Amino acid sequence: MKIGVIGGGQLGRMLALAGTPLGMNFAFLDPAPDACAAPLGEHLRADYGDQDHLRQLADEVDLVTFEFESVPAETVAFLSQFVPVYPSADALRIARDRWFEKSMFKDLGVPTPTFADIQSQADLDAAVASIGLPAVLKTRTLGYDGKGQKVLRSATDVAGTFAELGSVPCLLEGFVPFTGEVSLIAVRARDGETRFYPLVHNTHEAGILRLSVASTAHPLQGLAEDYAGRVLQKLDYVGVLAFEFFEVDGGLKANEIAPRVHNSGHWTIEGAECSQFENHLRAVAGLPLGSTAKVGESAMLNFIGEVPAVAQVAAIDDCHLHHYGKAFKVGRKVGHATVRCADRATLQRQIAEVQALIQG
Amino acid sequence: MKIGVIGGGQLGRMLALAGTPLGMNFAFLDPAPDACAAPLGEHLRADYGDQDHLRQLADEVDLVTFEFESVPAETVAFLSQFVPVYPSADALRIARDRWFEKSMFKDLGVPTPTFADIQSQADLDAAVASIGLPAVLKTRTLGYDGKGQKVLRSATDVAGTFAELGSVPCLLEGFVPFTGEVSLIAVRARDGETRFYPLVHNTHEAGILRLSVASTAHPLQGLAEDYAGRVLQKLDYVGVLAFEFFEVDGGLKANEIAPRVHNSGHWTIEGAECSQFENHLRAVAGLPLGSTAKVGESAMLNFIGEVPAVAQVAAIDDCHLHHYGKAFKVGRKVGHATVRCADRATLQRQIAEVQALIQG
Repeated sequence: MKIGVIGGGQLGRMLALAGTPLGMNFAFLDPAPDACAAPLGEHLRADYGDQDHLRQLADEVDLVTFEFESVPAETVAFLSQFVPVYPSADALRIARDRWFEKSMFKDLGVPTPTFADIQSQADLDAAVASIGLPAVLKTRTLGYDGKGQKVLRSATDVAGTFAELGSVPCLLEGFVPFTGEVSLIAVRARDGETRFYPLVHNTHEAGILRLSVASTAHPLQGLAEDYAGRVLQKLDYVGVLAFEFFEVDGGLKANEIAPRVHNSGHWTIEGAECSQFENHLRAVAGLPLGSTAKVGESAMLNFIGEVPAVAQVAAIDDCHLHHYGKAFKVGRKVGHATVRCADRATLQRQIAEVQALIQG
Repeated sequence: MKIGVIGGGQLGRMLALAGTPLGMNFAFLDPAPDACAAPLGEHLRADYGDQDHLRQLADEVDLVTFEFESVPAETVAFLSQFVPVYPSADALRIARDRWFEKSMFKDLGVPTPTFADIQSQADLDAAVASIGLPAVLKTRTLGYDGKGQKVLRSATDVAGTFAELGSVPCLLEGFVPFTGEVSLIAVRARDGETRFYPLVHNTHEAGILRLSVASTAHPLQGLAEDYAGRVLQKLDYVGVLAFEFFEVDGGLKANEIAPRVHNSGHWTIEGAECSQFENHLRAVAGLPLGSTAKVGESAMLNFIGEVPAVAQVAAIDDCHLHHYGKAFKVGRKVGHATVRCADRATLQRQIAEVQALIQG
């Protein structure tokens, strides 16, 4: 089976590493000449709107999936004429736009921060008056890793901010005094079978994920699965979907969903019986899903900007390096490490060792 | 770091899958147009004796290693002039020739079946008279998966057999009434550090490995490590070496070594903290070795001739498919499955499920 992937970054690369042993071949559509997934498959170097190359991709592959959600709706609609596309155009349309996404949460009774659609500075001023400060202004589409958003703490922050974010449609969100951030990686098969990985505790710095720790018997697991299940069913979703929550007052408020494999699920390569990458491929290919059970205790740490010397990473016990083969650049995700072991105390020690290397 | 691999079959493919996350790139020298490792790296399609392509490979890569041992000695010697080669030409020269191999066992005090060098039918007749029947005649080089060998049970089997095996140098081995076959996968770093995986119980049919089960606290583990350690040190070996033993009278007799990653170590991809493939690459690249500790109970089953339907393999709990992407052909190794779980009873059930699929 040949899988077409829109995007050829590290998520595509890890999809190919998971899918090759299943006998799958891959083609990546990505305009970047140095797309890091390219060595593991065919590379169609073209813009996402290039209909000739989209048509070529559709002709060559059995199905198409995505490694990022900021794909133009027209691209998905065009592809869908010729080849099965998972997740669906509808699911992508909603997940890539914070207004549609938050409105869906509200409709489904999934708690989420107060929000308002912002189409102008006047909208913003009115929404701030209603929601209050602090609040966060985010572009409705194309934001990631803290980009395309601004925290508003005082009236000074509000003035002219709509223009500062590019005068594009935005969403204002009331600030949530959360005690933690967790994510739920879910996978849903074509036949509707759904499985969930254990909740993951995430730590961000400057808007970028740094550390994900898989939990054991988290008290909010059931609630998170309930909320995510409503969304998966509503979207008739196929594939892996990541659900980010704020922990607030012993409950959960939905932050956002990502309709793809997710950075906070990278630990599953070593830390779960079947990884998020393999399960995404199983789902889109119509195969039975794999077990989402944990294999020991594990945590994932991102390498931002540069990967430490391979010998130093390899010297840490039970540490698994994932080098993305990308050029090093400040603020760029260029690799990660997963530590896996039998108990929490050892895990904490191993996390500290990797952190020392990162800060070294 | 770019690694050159002589051979581009499934072992090369799994080396690339293990090395890509370490940030390594691969080039495979293999004359086969459909070499199944080729999609994961550069493919230099040339004969193993093609000096132009060997020189090109040496110029492009940081080091060269092997995925099979039947490489002409001249190839290794030629490459070694230009680029580091691991394991060394000396280690390969001994491991690829049953006479050198068995003589080394004898010199090192490692028990092995009685053997004799056979250069003619007269040698064979004399050796049969001395060693007795049953016995096994094997070509000194190039044998694998039961090829290049013949079991001699009666005088009729002996007559004309030297010519039947091609009139090439052979080894006659006394038949060993073994109670089981085990293998030890060892890895030795450039600095001499050595690690061993748990002993593996192997089951062959018609000379081809069918089932490998990783053991727990095997009573012969220490003895096997002692024997293998002598060989590794003698050869100043770098990389993974597989050591096959017969279990005889509560002890071990050395059958053969393979100077490479080995089919009986494929379970380590899921079943050990660091796989034989990653550890081989760590060793040859001068990196610290990874842990050889088991992760749960696991077993590997080969798919010979054809891979069952992917959906059926994926439907078995905790079953991991490794499809080699090779054309199906009777008697050919085209894939394997590893089952991994927490306890032996579940493992036996899972093995039976995969076997039912194979026989189905």
